Amino acid sequence: MRAATIRDGGIHVEDHPDPAAGAGEALVRVRAAGINGADMLQRRGRYPAPPGSPQDIPGLELAGEVVALGDGATRFAVGDRVMAIVGGGGQAELAVVHERQLIPVPDALDWPAAGGFPEVFTTAHDAIFSQGGLRAGERLLVHGGAGGVGTAAIQLGRAAGARVTATVRNPDLRDQVAALGATVIEPEGFAEHGPFDVVLELVGAPNLDANVDALAIEGRIVVIGIGAGAKGELNLAKLMGKRGTIRASTLRARPLEEKAATARRLERHVLPLVQSGALRVPVAATFGLDEAEAAYDRFAAGGKLGKIVLLP
Amino acid sequence: MRAATIRDGGIHVEDHPDPAAGAGEALVRVRAAGINGADMLQRRGRYPAPPGSPQDIPGLELAGEVVALGDGATRFAVGDRVMAIVGGGGQAELAVVHERQLIPVPDALDWPAAGGFPEVFTTAHDAIFSQGGLRAGERLLVHGGAGGVGTAAIQLGRAAGARVTATVRNPDLRDQVAALGATVIEPEGFAEHGPFDVVLELVGAPNLDANVDALAIEGRIVVIGIGAGAKGELNLAKLMGKRGTIRASTLRARPLEEKAATARRLERHVLPLVQSGALRVPVAATFGLDEAEAAYDRFAAGGKLGKIVLLP
Repeated sequence: MRAATIRDGGIHVEDHPDPAAGAGEALVRVRAAGINGADMLQRRGRYPAPPGSPQDIPGLELAGEVVALGDGATRFAVGDRVMAIVGGGGQAELAVVHERQLIPVPDALDWPAAGGFPEVFTTAHDAIFSQGGLRAGERLLVHGGAGGVGTAAIQLGRAAGARVTATVRNPDLRDQVAALGATVIEPEGFAEHGPFDVVLELVGAPNLDANVDALAIEGRIVVIGIGAGAKGELNLAKLMGKRGTIRASTLRARPLEEKAATARRLERHVLPLVQSGALRVPVAATFGLDEAEAAYDRFAAGGKLGKIVLLP
Repeated sequence: MRAATIRDGGIHVEDHPDPAAGAGEALVRVRAAGINGADMLQRRGRYPAPPGSPQDIPGLELAGEVVALGDGATRFAVGDRVMAIVGGGGQAELAVVHERQLIPVPDALDWPAAGGFPEVFTTAHDAIFSQGGLRAGERLLVHGGAGGVGTAAIQLGRAAGARVTATVRNPDLRDQVAALGATVIEPEGFAEHGPFDVVLELVGAPNLDANVDALAIEGRIVVIGIGAGAKGELNLAKLMGKRGTIRASTLRARPLEEKAATARRLERHVLPLVQSGALRVPVAATFGLDEAEAAYDRFAAGGKLGKIVLLP
């Protein structure tokens, strides 16, 4: 099979042996595979794939058709449309995925949307609900509302009855983010727009101190992105006054059982919203697998709203 | 009535009008009232009492007998032995307490122990279980194991099946803390003794960075004491790697319904352990109400294990 391949700090498309489905796994012919920030890090030699995942083939999410089943795999049949988060290896013509990580693709999603759905919606859902405990009527602040996880979090928060505010640095993207259901504000002085019950931090430590200021009593800050910096000063007295919580998390390093549990929550709580049209997957551009390098460059250039998706 | 009174940065014992029980409240003749760190802050004009509590009479906890009941107060009868956390005003001959905040005094506790029980056991129980989610089999680190909350947390953690480690700075107190059921270590280099599922921070920000190092995957740091400093650098990348949580809290500022819920949890989960002898309240010294200033000085001097309790 052909696959995007990380070598010497660049993305190449090379031949690899076809993978085979092991016990409990499905072999999937990949139709679409979104690009994510972690792929950018991995291309530069940071954020290596976890053990058991292909080390040189990037790609944290995929959608496609089941073409073969390993021993004991019974949740799906050959030909079923499936999608999943994977530890790596999604940007290839074929990928093996444990059946407990697979979720069905709703009719409402075409291949590009399905390929760009799993990572950002799983990440956003896990962050604002499982980590942040967001409930109806609460106020959610999304830092970095124009990004993939940001747009997913805004829509999920709205669909769950929360009031959503989002910071967006690029003025050209603010109207599009507002159309997803958020009150859009500038990053500067965001704390004045609080208090917020849940703050989703996708930018990094520079926001840390003001996030505590912006927090409601018993509010929760969920940190899942630190591109703008990892270290910041924390004032514990202020956090005590808010009776506040800071949670930091990543999806990629979790064991199979947790990833599978996350997939089940997505099936139960998110797929019905996709099918009803309450959620949509903005896709900014699609590229063929052979154009992977150009797709990565497009992702890195920013200034877009929506996913960049490879179509092998 | 006579009451300890804060005036001009000192503690005096002065006459005050007798309080009267309002709707849902009980008037309690105070037999014992523990001294806590917050009283020290309040004496110096910091940490004022919340609205609705006496502003000039210190005392966050008390034990005594019900002597009168306000309209609609039915949980206790005149003569019952009760104890409670209060927003202030505990260090007096009489105090009014809402009946939902009162809990019965088990036979196993004499007055000094009952007067020193509510604050530290409520605080420790709320911190390690309600905030920290400590479960059987997990590893608990208590920073400041020789203090009142620390000794309560060690005993509660042990009684709940956790493995407990405690830092103790004063070498003279280490054996006594170990006798409560903890593995006692020096504060320096504590992270090498990890990983810990729950870290109870009673000291402050200087431990923050090493607490993250000491954390187990999905571990929780619960900050309720910051005497050694409020501000510290937090490395969010390390916290993400641990999928860790930092929670900071105070009991005193919470509304009645939360304090009442906390009192119910104490009744259900802690009083049986007191009655069975699994928990004890170390009392270092008792003082008469007229000796309040000396009692405060004794508290501030440190170097003790156990509560300082006033006996009005």
